Amino acid sequence: MNSLTVIKIGGNIVDNELALHDFLLQFASIKGAKILVHGGGKVATKIGEQLGIVSKYVNGRRITDEATLDLVTMVYGGLINKKIVAILQKLACNAIGLTGADGNLIPAIKRPVKEIDYGYVGDVLNGQIPVKKWVSLIHGKFIPIVAPLTHDNAGHMLNTNADTIAQEIAVALSSDYDVSLIYSFEKEGVLLDVHDEESVIPSITLAYYEELKTVQEDGSTKIFAGMIPKLDNAFQALKHGVQRVIIGKANDVDSLLQGSKGTTIKL
Amino acid sequence: MNSLTVIKIGGNIVDNELALHDFLLQFASIKGAKILVHGGGKVATKIGEQLGIVSKYVNGRRITDEATLDLVTMVYGGLINKKIVAILQKLACNAIGLTGADGNLIPAIKRPVKEIDYGYVGDVLNGQIPVKKWVSLIHGKFIPIVAPLTHDNAGHMLNTNADTIAQEIAVALSSDYDVSLIYSFEKEGVLLDVHDEESVIPSITLAYYEELKTVQEDGSTKIFAGMIPKLDNAFQALKHGVQRVIIGKANDVDSLLQGSKGTTIKL
Repeated sequence: MNSLTVIKIGGNIVDNELALHDFLLQFASIKGAKILVHGGGKVATKIGEQLGIVSKYVNGRRITDEATLDLVTMVYGGLINKKIVAILQKLACNAIGLTGADGNLIPAIKRPVKEIDYGYVGDVLNGQIPVKKWVSLIHGKFIPIVAPLTHDNAGHMLNTNADTIAQEIAVALSSDYDVSLIYSFEKEGVLLDVHDEESVIPSITLAYYEELKTVQEDGSTKIFAGMIPKLDNAFQALKHGVQRVIIGKANDVDSLLQGSKGTTIKL
Repeated sequence: MNSLTVIKIGGNIVDNELALHDFLLQFASIKGAKILVHGGGKVATKIGEQLGIVSKYVNGRRITDEATLDLVTMVYGGLINKKIVAILQKLACNAIGLTGADGNLIPAIKRPVKEIDYGYVGDVLNGQIPVKKWVSLIHGKFIPIVAPLTHDNAGHMLNTNADTIAQEIAVALSSDYDVSLIYSFEKEGVLLDVHDEESVIPSITLAYYEELKTVQEDGSTKIFAGMIPKLDNAFQALKHGVQRVIIGKANDVDSLLQGSKGTTIKL
């Protein structure tokens, strides 16, 4: 099978012009089929403040009301996505900016209301990514750049988690490609001590992960709790056909792909 | 040859939620291949004011500085484009939102500085639309929804005239399709008296157009001067292979396509 590299970059990379350019230079030179999924970034918060849009929280969870939805649609789907596309085009990388609504490429539903009404937040419909459409784009020599947005099939966009989007695309396309999924951000990898960049864990198996996320007597976990959803996505991907998952620094993409840096996730 | 309908809707339609929905319902039901190009709309001006972005003018011409470029990239490429895509997806029309930067689908250059420096404004490079890429999207069952933005191939987006984008796409694809180009807006067609919706001119030939745009003794022209760039684009299209060009009301698209309403442009 041909190779496909799916890379997710976090919001901190999107916010940092130098780090973003450096990453995109490396991305442009990756051989074979590739897809980039980008996070949001603080620029949305900044523009939201200027527009007088106040982030709402319920029980500590951020809610996407209509004004916030318009904001993230503008900033993630317009400003950030097209900035990345324009830079990649300059680098002779035939980027095409997309959201999950475009071509219905990422079928999703508005998150059902249980204890919390998250508002216009999307949950990707498991296993429903239309593989043929993605393959037709890749065969057409397009390199998809995906913003963290989907739609509800009822006329509304939905704010959607970029880690999950990357995982679902990687899993779906593993039917046709040998897929490497890279979660990249501003840190060296999964750290044992979140304040120590030297404490990168070279590889995490499912058994070790269970140990790492066990809640200890003081209520903490051995790894930073914020990493847990990302690691859950990583194991999901491996269980459903993705060949390799690596977590590490966006500016080390070459080394991550070679396996010489970052954290490799293993079943 | 198969038919292709290229429709441009003006900013006044984009701004009017009811008119937009009504138009999109008709657009969704058009048979054969189709492409929609949308204008900007006043929502960008409104959001710009909230962000403290002041439109700059030189000799009465609007200039696109960096802040304005970010604004139109967000609003045209994000908010408006994805709103249209989400509504069309709901109507089972497989819309894919694009700018000219995406896939380098509309090669352009930053407008050369002569008397005026327009800033980040794009001029579509005549005759360079990559026909094969567009055809591959259409064959992939995608229906392109195009925002009035291009890029300079040097990493920047460019604010670009939607009428010209529609014309260039229509001309390029006339090599592979029987193309109808519809310029639609809030008026019934080209009016002899801009204040009288009953004064629609049913058809305009090139000879008649010369007469209509002749500057009279009082300095005015027989038709509203604002229509002249649109008519120039219409004649350009006909001269370079587009089969028919019709100008009329966005909410009469069915009748425009049948030729029973609006203004038909003829060589």
